[in-house]
Amino acid sequence: MSQHVKSDARGAEEIIEWGESRNIETCFDRAEKLKPCPIGAVGACCKVCHMGPCRLVGKNAEEEARGVCGATLPTVAARNFLRMIAAGTAAHSDHARGMAFTLLAVAKGEAKDFKITDVRKLYRVAGYLNIEFEGREVNAVAKDVAEKLIEDFGRQKGEGNFITRAPKKTQERWRKWGIVPRGVDREVCEAMHRTNIGVDHDPDHLLTQGLRTALADGWLGSMISTDVTDILFGTPKPIKAEASFGIFKEDEVNLIVHGHEPLLAEILVDVVGEPEMVEYAKSKGAKGINLGGMCCTANEVLMRHGIPTAGGFTNQELGIMTGLIDAMTVDVQCIMPAITEISKKFHTKVITTSEKAKIKGAMHVEFDEHRAKEVAREIVKIAVDNFPNRTATGSHITDKAPLVAGFSHEYIEYMQGGTWRGSFRPLNDAIIAGRVRGVVGLAGCDNPRVPSTGLHHFLAKELIKNDILIVSTGCGSAACGSAGFLTPETALEQAGPGLREVCEAIGIPPILHLGACVDNSRILTIASAMAAEGGLSDEIGGMPAVGIAPEWMSEKAIAIGCYFAASGVPVIFGGDSPVEGSTEVTKIMTEVWFERYMGALHFEPDPEKILAMAIKYIDAARERLKLRKYEPGKFGAERVLMDMAARREIEKAAKPHIGIY
Amino acid sequence: MSQHVKSDARGAEEIIEWGESRNIETCFDRAEKLKPCPIGAVGACCKVCHMGPCRLVGKNAEEEARGVCGATLPTVAARNFLRMIAAGTAAHSDHARGMAFTLLAVAKGEAKDFKITDVRKLYRVAGYLNIEFEGREVNAVAKDVAEKLIEDFGRQKGEGNFITRAPKKTQERWRKWGIVPRGVDREVCEAMHRTNIGVDHDPDHLLTQGLRTALADGWLGSMISTDVTDILFGTPKPIKAEASFGIFKEDEVNLIVHGHEPLLAEILVDVVGEPEMVEYAKSKGAKGINLGGMCCTANEVLMRHGIPTAGGFTNQELGIMTGLIDAMTVDVQCIMPAITEISKKFHTKVITTSEKAKIKGAMHVEFDEHRAKEVAREIVKIAVDNFPNRTATGSHITDKAPLVAGFSHEYIEYMQGGTWRGSFRPLNDAIIAGRVRGVVGLAGCDNPRVPSTGLHHFLAKELIKNDILIVSTGCGSAACGSAGFLTPETALEQAGPGLREVCEAIGIPPILHLGACVDNSRILTIASAMAAEGGLSDEIGGMPAVGIAPEWMSEKAIAIGCYFAASGVPVIFGGDSPVEGSTEVTKIMTEVWFERYMGALHFEPDPEKILAMAIKYIDAARERLKLRKYEPGKFGAERVLMDMAARREIEKAAKPHIGIY
Repeated sequence: MSQHVKSDARGAEEIIEWGESRNIETCFDRAEKLKPCPIGAVGACCKVCHMGPCRLVGKNAEEEARGVCGATLPTVAARNFLRMIAAGTAAHSDHARGMAFTLLAVAKGEAKDFKITDVRKLYRVAGYLNIEFEGREVNAVAKDVAEKLIEDFGRQKGEGNFITRAPKKTQERWRKWGIVPRGVDREVCEAMHRTNIGVDHDPDHLLTQGLRTALADGWLGSMISTDVTDILFGTPKPIKAEASFGIFKEDEVNLIVHGHEPLLAEILVDVVGEPEMVEYAKSKGAKGINLGGMCCTANEVLMRHGIPTAGGFTNQELGIMTGLIDAMTVDVQCIMPAITEISKKFHTKVITTSEKAKIKGAMHVEFDEHRAKEVAREIVKIAVDNFPNRTATGSHITDKAPLVAGFSHEYIEYMQGGTWRGSFRPLNDAIIAGRVRGVVGLAGCDNPRVPSTGLHHFLAKELIKNDILIVSTGCGSAACGSAGFLTPETALEQAGPGLREVCEAIGIPPILHLGACVDNSRILTIASAMAAEGGLSDEIGGMPAVGIAPEWMSEKAIAIGCYFAASGVPVIFGGDSPVEGSTEVTKIMTEVWFERYMGALHFEPDPEKILAMAIKYIDAARERLKLRKYEPGKFGAERVLMDMAARREIEKAAKPHIGIY
Repeated sequence: MSQHVKSDARGAEEIIEWGESRNIETCFDRAEKLKPCPIGAVGACCKVCHMGPCRLVGKNAEEEARGVCGATLPTVAARNFLRMIAAGTAAHSDHARGMAFTLLAVAKGEAKDFKITDVRKLYRVAGYLNIEFEGREVNAVAKDVAEKLIEDFGRQKGEGNFITRAPKKTQERWRKWGIVPRGVDREVCEAMHRTNIGVDHDPDHLLTQGLRTALADGWLGSMISTDVTDILFGTPKPIKAEASFGIFKEDEVNLIVHGHEPLLAEILVDVVGEPEMVEYAKSKGAKGINLGGMCCTANEVLMRHGIPTAGGFTNQELGIMTGLIDAMTVDVQCIMPAITEISKKFHTKVITTSEKAKIKGAMHVEFDEHRAKEVAREIVKIAVDNFPNRTATGSHITDKAPLVAGFSHEYIEYMQGGTWRGSFRPLNDAIIAGRVRGVVGLAGCDNPRVPSTGLHHFLAKELIKNDILIVSTGCGSAACGSAGFLTPETALEQAGPGLREVCEAIGIPPILHLGACVDNSRILTIASAMAAEGGLSDEIGGMPAVGIAPEWMSEKAIAIGCYFAASGVPVIFGGDSPVEGSTEVTKIMTEVWFERYMGALHFEPDPEKILAMAIKYIDAARERLKLRKYEPGKFGAERVLMDMAARREIEKAAKPHIGIY
């Protein structure tokens, strides 16, 4: 592990050093300077009313500390945690709401610059919603789909539409424990009500509402967002691209889309190629217009168009410090307000584009899906006009890595049998046989406070070495990508022999980039498909699968971790626990949740321990499912001592499809 | 002012002393022991992501401090404040949602124990909603009304139903600044999204969403709650009752309803009078069953049935310490979890009744509007069964005060001209003439941290002495009531001569108890009626009216303060400012808001200054409206030097109705 670097995105260290020598402050410096409040950090600070903020500290705080109202530390920690889930859910779901309303506008012909790109996916989603699609106009189907999906936001009673996409047994657990979400907004609202002064005080009861809210995040908001984005812009297929700061071009206009929503970015993909725009750029002395991405907007257009990514959250200031970004659009979520300040030292124009978010010092050009191209052209012009202002100032560091992304769940299915016989049989069989030990979802944020970064890189390397297939999203993917670890060759070289064999047979790399952080919903779909396929667990719970978010920092990550836990996936977060102050709350989130849902949420700062815990969960699940005990080196090139007869016997035990390897 | 008492509810000091001598800890002790975190208290602590919690402190923090993401102190303070509004709005609105769904259940015949009590009010509300009511079945109208009201919670686009009840000019301001709420849940959700890491960073932009959310609290949630409660249980009319600890009876079963929702409490009013229940109580040695209230549930049943109140928020532990409460039901909001701990020292059973709220150590008997009486009887039995367990333990302090409550806006209108000619003409004219200097809404919580309590009492006394009419709600009313200040005689004696004359003429006390904290919506309706009546301002803004919450502590109070500010009422909160850390945010909430909406939200810990500021606002509004300058002692008994001719001249300047005085 790289213990001393702040970031292992290619070129990052050089930029940081360049900045330090010029006294340019970044999030890494601020993280070093600012000690996090030790009371708030462990969930022991309560500021939900003006009798406080109360700090529940001291010896035996868990048992003895009380707020002015009498709230105990477990109550306070659980309440804080529930508010985090509510905020995270609100964020993803607002994003999803925007997508659903855009689909409606497209279907009604009110957003002329967009169209239904993936009709097949539209029909698939219509099918989930019991909407008739055969023989109907595409836009009529799309309108019905959009309207039905929009119901999920305002619904007051009943159940979210996509709840039935989960395995039956998973649904049964949810109903038994009362955590089936009604509507997204309703659950967020109830979470905020319950955490008011003097409402809900029982930690378990509070956290149960937390899981209900989180399920609204995963199975309602996020899943809607993924599906609608696929319908509008196409379901991703594997695509080659590049990552890290080297994607910026010295001789072209560099326009960077940063944030989360894909709408503006998708239109920019078209607009930057328009001959008038290219001509305009040339008239200003540039050779062309280079569109790049950052954070999850990057993941969206990377997955569908191979637009290169400058990386995740902690790269945003560094990108500006190259001096090469002519304009950066930002919409919502994970935008450091510091970028407007740092941009003053360079020539970069920061442009806020969402009606929900403004930053002092940024230009504001509001995106409107009804006149998308018009807005996009205005933005491209700002970038082009700013190209001549580029100076020698800036690190001008350009180091990059190739990568492959674009692994939608549909494509993973397709890879395992083609269009007509696509299934998860081969993957299930590989797990059953022990070729693949298990699956890990490696996701979550970049956090400049994590003492040694490179956690994603470290874990990715160790997991695949252990024959564990990785599915990754969000800044987790970006970190792997900009560290050069999403190159299929590099990764395959380092994968364990069983995993390598399977990957080569199916034709996938051992680390599958599934998209943005809303696309964690794809992992839910994959897990459900694996349960439906048979031979492993008949629900999501009990699968040899674990979620890891080693550098989480956003409340969205907490919501995601909780919907995985509620869905039956043990999840391990890096860094310190935000509920560390309360052993009761910690126990609920680990032991009690595992008992009820077969999922859990752990916080473990030590990366070696994260790895060990993940493997332990996977092996325990294998044992519970009575699968063959995983033996390292049993399959693939290293299996020198194993004779063919023994191998055939193992394969016979697995299901029929094994033949296609 | 009473500088040294902790509470001036009658009997409170004795109970506190009794407890102190026995080492029984109350909120007052905890408030003394726990220093509020000075960083969080001023809005300078940011814990919306796991790079923090960041503390934005130091010299020039406003300009120079930055969180790890680069957030400034104004951003952090505004973000914290917006979350407070979101939480407060969520609370009131969940309460309102419960009422609206109960109305629907009643209309559909699914909640047999409830009925439509006030058909006239139902029709009035139907009228607001453009729902036909003439010649239709009451339940059919009620169903349409309920369904239309329920739309306000889940609505995704458009405007809340009751927005059009505001004066046109007030609505125009809202539309101009983009603060018309769409749906309650949607605004809460967007507030939570915008306050996520990396979304909205502009303090003014954040606070604008705050006002939109707050308007959803006032004009959607709270107004719905008030209207539906009136429809189901009757619109309040003046009623005599009693307040403070003396309402507990030594020889009867004391069952106390505490919290906010009126549903269970209303049914208990019926059930405690059932002969079988009374007989059952007698069989256990009690002379009967005494139902009392606490907090806003108390206000609800006090307003409609004269059920006595043991007071507001800070009285809940003290009530139990009398040793006389056999059972206390609690639902949602402002329940101190400390009561379960303190109840262990006495015989009191604490019963949680909401599906949204549990407390460890309490019994849980869940209320269900579909079998309301059944649940109510179960609860009464628990109280009765516990009567024989009553011991000598407890302060047994019983001191109380008479009061009059029950001033709905409909009744205030009725008092000014009867059923057919009811209007706000007399009140407007009295203000125009200067008999009444202005109106103050005295509301908000009880806060044990306020160094000297009795603020409500002090302000009430001084305001009416200055000929200012008071409308009060919530714990503000409870505090005035349990201090013996809602006795019409006491108050009239202390009122200024002009106000006294008007009160005597109309037949109202100078302090009008309007109900629970959701009933602050009645003040919005009164202000709108005054604007419509003419002669003062043609919008809510600009009226000689001020809101004061001297001891606020709940986030709900913040939401209320903000909806008044956005509606055009300058509001003054006591205690320290939760945004004190940022002069920019403070300026937005005072100067900028006043410019845009003619409302403001101030925080002022000094009660004398609160009084002076309120009077200054009122006099400035009088001047702006070109009303006669207020002169103390000009009217009424004290006007010894004023001849009748001069008086007639003044009265001539006012509008015709003046004759009815």
